[in-house]
Amino acid sequence: MQRSAVRPQYWAVMSAGTLTDVFGLRVGHVHAIRSGWRTGTTVITAERGAIGGVDVRGGAPGTRETDLLRPENLVQQVHAICLTGGSAYGLAAADGVMAALEAQSIGFPVGVGGTGVVPIVPAAAIYDLGRGGRFASRPDAGFGHRATIRARVGSCPEGAVGAGAGAIAGGLQGGVGTASIRLANGVVVSALAVVNSAGSVIDPATALPWEASGVPLRRADRHDRTRLREVLGADHLPLNTTIGVVATSMALDKAECTKFAGVAHDGLARAVRPAHSMFDGDAIFALSTGSALPPGSVRPAGSSPSPRERSIELNAVFEAGAQCFATASTRAVVVARSLRGGPPSYGDLCPSAFR
Amino acid sequence: MQRSAVRPQYWAVMSAGTLTDVFGLRVGHVHAIRSGWRTGTTVITAERGAIGGVDVRGGAPGTRETDLLRPENLVQQVHAICLTGGSAYGLAAADGVMAALEAQSIGFPVGVGGTGVVPIVPAAAIYDLGRGGRFASRPDAGFGHRATIRARVGSCPEGAVGAGAGAIAGGLQGGVGTASIRLANGVVVSALAVVNSAGSVIDPATALPWEASGVPLRRADRHDRTRLREVLGADHLPLNTTIGVVATSMALDKAECTKFAGVAHDGLARAVRPAHSMFDGDAIFALSTGSALPPGSVRPAGSSPSPRERSIELNAVFEAGAQCFATASTRAVVVARSLRGGPPSYGDLCPSAFR
Repeated sequence: MQRSAVRPQYWAVMSAGTLTDVFGLRVGHVHAIRSGWRTGTTVITAERGAIGGVDVRGGAPGTRETDLLRPENLVQQVHAICLTGGSAYGLAAADGVMAALEAQSIGFPVGVGGTGVVPIVPAAAIYDLGRGGRFASRPDAGFGHRATIRARVGSCPEGAVGAGAGAIAGGLQGGVGTASIRLANGVVVSALAVVNSAGSVIDPATALPWEASGVPLRRADRHDRTRLREVLGADHLPLNTTIGVVATSMALDKAECTKFAGVAHDGLARAVRPAHSMFDGDAIFALSTGSALPPGSVRPAGSSPSPRERSIELNAVFEAGAQCFATASTRAVVVARSLRGGPPSYGDLCPSAFR
Repeated sequence: MQRSAVRPQYWAVMSAGTLTDVFGLRVGHVHAIRSGWRTGTTVITAERGAIGGVDVRGGAPGTRETDLLRPENLVQQVHAICLTGGSAYGLAAADGVMAALEAQSIGFPVGVGGTGVVPIVPAAAIYDLGRGGRFASRPDAGFGHRATIRARVGSCPEGAVGAGAGAIAGGLQGGVGTASIRLANGVVVSALAVVNSAGSVIDPATALPWEASGVPLRRADRHDRTRLREVLGADHLPLNTTIGVVATSMALDKAECTKFAGVAHDGLARAVRPAHSMFDGDAIFALSTGSALPPGSVRPAGSSPSPRERSIELNAVFEAGAQCFATASTRAVVVARSLRGGPPSYGDLCPSAFR
């Protein structure tokens, strides 16, 4: 990390960390990048269920199944999160996620004797309509279905993949980024961000990211800095959506997940400038798989924290979530490679920044 | 400014700008700094009324009259904002603000024939109990009354004054900071912050602030950097409250003020790291005095923006608000001088940073 937002003893950053470093999560990308198409869908599955929360802070959100995440509402566990291109149309991708999960009998049990399930799949969309050349080319249920089937643990492709295929960030190729942190107490925190912002993750003054990316970077040469500033300084569409997920292996309840999602927006605010405009759909989901783990896997069996100790533990998770989300958002742009016919990438304009 | 969070053509920063650069606002500080005492109160008055909003994002807030600011509720105009030390006890300072305003017949008209008024005075508190040596030394109605009487336009003292007298920020003397920006269209945006945070506004790696302060600073020498890091790295109380106000001369409605306050938290997140913890009371009020100005003073009479144009104007105000709040929060610590018996100031530890 280039610089730590909090005292370094808080955590050790996991190099090449991904969202799936939190046990129980898988990530799958599907995209269409061809004539007329530049869009896609990213699905995060929690097949054994995860406690969920959300904080929607954009002025023009496109979301689905967010009301059930409110702490006062019935459903406790979500089974997948669907992040997708295609604006509100793209929310149809969640239909396919539900179908894929239903086929595996994963979901909230319903029906006579609990014979049926309703998979709980909150979703959020970015605006990328027409970026491949055709306005009607947008993710449908098939994208969500395939992304669910493909979801896996381990290395997670970043950049112009999945829901980030059609993303543009401050005039540069946007995309997907991910990061994770292991706290000293063994708790893992991770994030995945899809960055499609009017705001920039790159500081025009230095041609370097505002926040740490985990990629070794140095000051680019004058020629590259000038080229980059021309792109960053151009008028961009005022669309400014960053969506994503923060996750932890610590057992949180729904209210704690809601706060976890809220504090993750601090990472978004630090990494993407400006953020949270009237035109954006900035939304962050939070997942806790901790309750799905065997008891005692995080905390020694039989021990119980005081309310104050609990809050201190939560603060460490929330701060790590904000840091992971900032790093994930930054990586989404820094590691993205440009697509034919798409906007230039950071690497295209600033090759001299990469050591 | 050291660096701009958005394209520089968005605005011109007003050097030595203060909250009262937004017409219609006054600021008054009262504090007690003597044996047993280190606390105070800061009052912002809007004698002709201002449309108000608030976003409370801390996990342990101490507030008063925030529910009436919800867009769906009756009252449209607030007459003062009271920021105070003394934790929840200190909210009593608002009693004195109300008394001072009632004596001037400023308030929401009530009673038979509108003969009486109820001044609308939302308030928020920081935790500074016992910092002067005596737990029971805390602001009361007299503090709020005197601060209201003293409220004035123009230069606004910063640092360990008013509600910031007992503030500590990341182990350093905290306090009050203020900043303003004039947009290209003539709209003025300003902020005042009271910073009392576990998080730091200073990056331990560089010994410089995370965000622009408007104070010319340079890299401190090694000796100073080491001294600073020792303080920043020490264990601090997990209290982490930043409270304040953003304001604009543009006419906003209550819902727009709510969003204005929300986006201002992006500035807090950038300037204070970490922020929004479970133990903090982070709360930002938003004020719009625009509707109190003669029609046409900001927009040419008779012109009316499209919804899209309106949103673009709002985004510029919101971004400027976040930037002002970040600068105000940073200034609160950078310009603060230490008090006898209090924590060291940034200037005490890093004199070589000041050019």
